[in-house]
Amino acid sequence: MSSFEDADTEETLTCLQITLYHPDRLQAGRFQSLRFCHREKLPSHKVVNFGRHSSSCHYVFQDKQVSRIQFSLQLFRDFSSSVLSVEIKNMSQKTSLFVDNHELGYLNKVKLPPKCILRFGDYQCLVEKEDGESLTFFETQFAWSPTSLLEENLRPLRTPVPENGSHSTLGSTLPTEMDENEL
Amino acid sequence: MSSFEDADTEETLTCLQITLYHPDRLQAGRFQSLRFCHREKLPSHKVVNFGRHSSSCHYVFQDKQVSRIQFSLQLFRDFSSSVLSVEIKNMSQKTSLFVDNHELGYLNKVKLPPKCILRFGDYQCLVEKEDGESLTFFETQFAWSPTSLLEENLRPLRTPVPENGSHSTLGSTLPTEMDENEL
Repeated sequence: MSSFEDADTEETLTCLQITLYHPDRLQAGRFQSLRFCHREKLPSHKVVNFGRHSSSCHYVFQDKQVSRIQFSLQLFRDFSSSVLSVEIKNMSQKTSLFVDNHELGYLNKVKLPPKCILRFGDYQCLVEKEDGESLTFFETQFAWSPTSLLEENLRPLRTPVPENGSHSTLGSTLPTEMDENEL
Repeated sequence: MSSFEDADTEETLTCLQITLYHPDRLQAGRFQSLRFCHREKLPSHKVVNFGRHSSSCHYVFQDKQVSRIQFSLQLFRDFSSSVLSVEIKNMSQKTSLFVDNHELGYLNKVKLPPKCILRFGDYQCLVEKEDGESLTFFETQFAWSPTSLLEENLRPLRTPVPENGSHSTLGSTLPTEMDENEL
């Protein structure tokens, strides 16, 4: 059995591959609490916070420019789906979070596409999702990039984001805004 | 200043009024950890779990029929909105959660309408949302009903729920399924 399976059920696990980049890569300690190239198994009901505050966050960035909780990831299941999806919510009142080119303010949230770039401050995170069978657990794995992730991964918008925040006409690289179809 | 405002900013707070009913109302202790007729102020980034497990849940139902975490409520902000919205996610692998007449399986989630009935097992919860100005905090307030909440509050579906879980043709009493408009 590989490390990609649940030891009890032998189901494959959804994995979030997260590649990090910061231009000031020589500053010691920024990522020291993260364990790179290691798969961590987490229960899928867990809300995973990223930020500066070690008591509130599962993954800590040791940087005063980062908010106490910068953003959260959580798993959910679409009604018509048997696999896990991922939602991101911006938890910072002072810093916007960009998912590809889409800006999230405080408490805005979107469903992540299978591959996307997150940006906040000078940080860049490439998030790639590999689907698995288990609904009970998922995994994370961190990597580090010595070069900017933007040129290779961030595709341009087909049309600019309108001022009202709607992006129904934008291209397929954008995440799903989940709250526009209120009945 | 009333108790409905944030003491620091004097902004009004979004309030979730939650009225509970269980047919076995004589069983002592079921709701003993809840403080009725009291407004509790919570930070809006908090994910509020309801269930049996006191370490995992902010509001505890002392009942072995209830899952360790039965469901979670969390606040978010629509892109085009200046007020807080509420999302519910079913965290139970064994019990369906009904929001009005819409069934949520494990890790399914919906945005709550301003007034709705939640059901799981024999429990009924009427949730009524009063909008406030603050984005930083919200409040909860619990009440208890001696009689079933269903007849008065649960309006019938206009059409049955199709087997694939889609409900785009259903009436306005249904909550918003937020994940159908993937790009």
